[in-house]
Amino acid sequence: MAEITIKDIAKQCGVGISTVSRALNNHPDINPETRKRILEVIEETGFIPNNSARNLKRTDARCIAVLVKGITNPFFSNMIRIIEEETQRNKYALVLRHVEAQEDEIDVALELEKEKRLRGIVFLGGTFDHSEEKINKLKVPFIFSTVGIPSTECIDVSKIIFSNIAVDDRLESKRMTDYLLDLGHRKIALITERSELPIGRLRTEGYRKAYDERGLSVPEELICYVQEDIDHYSMENGYLTAKKLLASGREVTAIYAVSDSLAIGACRAVLEAGKRIPEDISVAGYDGIEMGEYYNPKLTTIKQPVEEIAKKTIRLLLDVIAERREHQQIVFPAQLIERESTGPC
Amino acid sequence: MAEITIKDIAKQCGVGISTVSRALNNHPDINPETRKRILEVIEETGFIPNNSARNLKRTDARCIAVLVKGITNPFFSNMIRIIEEETQRNKYALVLRHVEAQEDEIDVALELEKEKRLRGIVFLGGTFDHSEEKINKLKVPFIFSTVGIPSTECIDVSKIIFSNIAVDDRLESKRMTDYLLDLGHRKIALITERSELPIGRLRTEGYRKAYDERGLSVPEELICYVQEDIDHYSMENGYLTAKKLLASGREVTAIYAVSDSLAIGACRAVLEAGKRIPEDISVAGYDGIEMGEYYNPKLTTIKQPVEEIAKKTIRLLLDVIAERREHQQIVFPAQLIERESTGPC
Repeated sequence: MAEITIKDIAKQCGVGISTVSRALNNHPDINPETRKRILEVIEETGFIPNNSARNLKRTDARCIAVLVKGITNPFFSNMIRIIEEETQRNKYALVLRHVEAQEDEIDVALELEKEKRLRGIVFLGGTFDHSEEKINKLKVPFIFSTVGIPSTECIDVSKIIFSNIAVDDRLESKRMTDYLLDLGHRKIALITERSELPIGRLRTEGYRKAYDERGLSVPEELICYVQEDIDHYSMENGYLTAKKLLASGREVTAIYAVSDSLAIGACRAVLEAGKRIPEDISVAGYDGIEMGEYYNPKLTTIKQPVEEIAKKTIRLLLDVIAERREHQQIVFPAQLIERESTGPC
Repeated sequence: MAEITIKDIAKQCGVGISTVSRALNNHPDINPETRKRILEVIEETGFIPNNSARNLKRTDARCIAVLVKGITNPFFSNMIRIIEEETQRNKYALVLRHVEAQEDEIDVALELEKEKRLRGIVFLGGTFDHSEEKINKLKVPFIFSTVGIPSTECIDVSKIIFSNIAVDDRLESKRMTDYLLDLGHRKIALITERSELPIGRLRTEGYRKAYDERGLSVPEELICYVQEDIDHYSMENGYLTAKKLLASGREVTAIYAVSDSLAIGACRAVLEAGKRIPEDISVAGYDGIEMGEYYNPKLTTIKQPVEEIAKKTIRLLLDVIAERREHQQIVFPAQLIERESTGPC
């Protein structure tokens, strides 16, 4: 049997070669029905598209690594999905690597870099506190996404060798605290990470700043740190931390947790203590995960534009790899979403 | 400067070479303090461990692909994390590939297989309904994990060229329906996928079987199918499907959704309709995701032993790759967890 060509497929389907090509390349400009039919014919005939084979050889040579700190946090699963889709559309393979809380992500990246086909790295979550020297060791383009960066003021722009995309954690966290203060709350408990870790630190700074600006003193005894030995941003950790706080007998009228997962865990602890949300205690989160919309009560939160951040992250990285664009520092605005879990003091 | 060796590091840290090696290989038998100190010295000296370089070359040559259908389902994120950890520990790279609901995962796998360093494939979720001919095209060892398989009776054991690990979806779904029938419910709405898709089909069969065995007729008008055009197992889909059901005015005393995400969405719809859970309507799910424990009310569910399944999946695959073991068909038992969202009719 003569080898089947793309022309044969096009003829058999009654379409042009370019349509077959679009079907093979998952191009958006094709009728899904047509695409399905073409793929069926390809399947029947056993045709191996040259083009696809060529792309695959290229795939063979190129991959993007995504290093995630806090992989079980639902905040990241949506981001990973979007990054994966976009990576795939651009014929790169995606290598996923989970970074432990105590691991240094740059070390992990340096290891991965010895992989010769690696073309770029995305860091999701984690720390920005790396020495310039260490960061300079990385040879492929990389991008920090949703990593708390102290502030772009500290960065010498002339030396920027990476991109960074995130919301302004300090500002957004202050916004949430201001909102609770405006509702009349003064005894606002904060559930956060130990201050060495940047996301926790920045969000804690925003909380303090809101009190400071009004000349109110920060209720230090209500700043609660999550357990170090389990996932920092898990529902379990929010639950355990809030439970301890409530058991302490300290007066509290609102709980603000620096992630929605923590806030949902905290809600569970409040409900188990026989308190109503928000009548007895208001609860607010941060991130804007889907769960918050379905929780009972619906969760007030700071919604990060996660889809936009993820898309921008991967597109910018691909542009930098292709030398179509320079590295950039991008700050996205977040949004305070008021739902059922917060109310007046 | 002479090249720094592992001996120099050991000497400088005052430990043996094997301790340095353990630190480098993330071996569990090492004091975390010691490990930290060794890694600091390594960092300072800029020492590049040969051993690690060698491992990395090996990593360069081997990877495992994970193909996930329904990547945003929180049920999978935990599994991916465990598979990733275990893969890494065994010096393989993990390639993650998201498979669209309408994509054929075997086609995707056949594409990935042209990647010469691929050593094995894990299919998470999705379909088992592939022709033998097609499955035979795959050359590397592969394993279906948490994929609904009609039943091992249908499989000719002499021809098994893959492994399969899952719970018995039909049996476990019948268990949940029996539980609700035992509580006195007869008007049990089912939220499921269209019957061509195996997980939905098997769980629907279990539901029907429970009614059948008691000589009760299945309330066909209460079998609700999720929307095809959005994620099948999302909270949003559960919410929209339950909302439509409740708006229809059909009498219903319990809702059983074939995943926890769907069930949580359904809870939101029930609450918005001004009904109480479980006093007016009981709601039950399937999977046992962490969220169910923190939801208000806590969700009654069928808990799949997800960690055991994930560990067994990757270990078995690595064993098959290393030819230490033959392919196996493994059925794990699940567990009905009774929580607050269900009660007597």
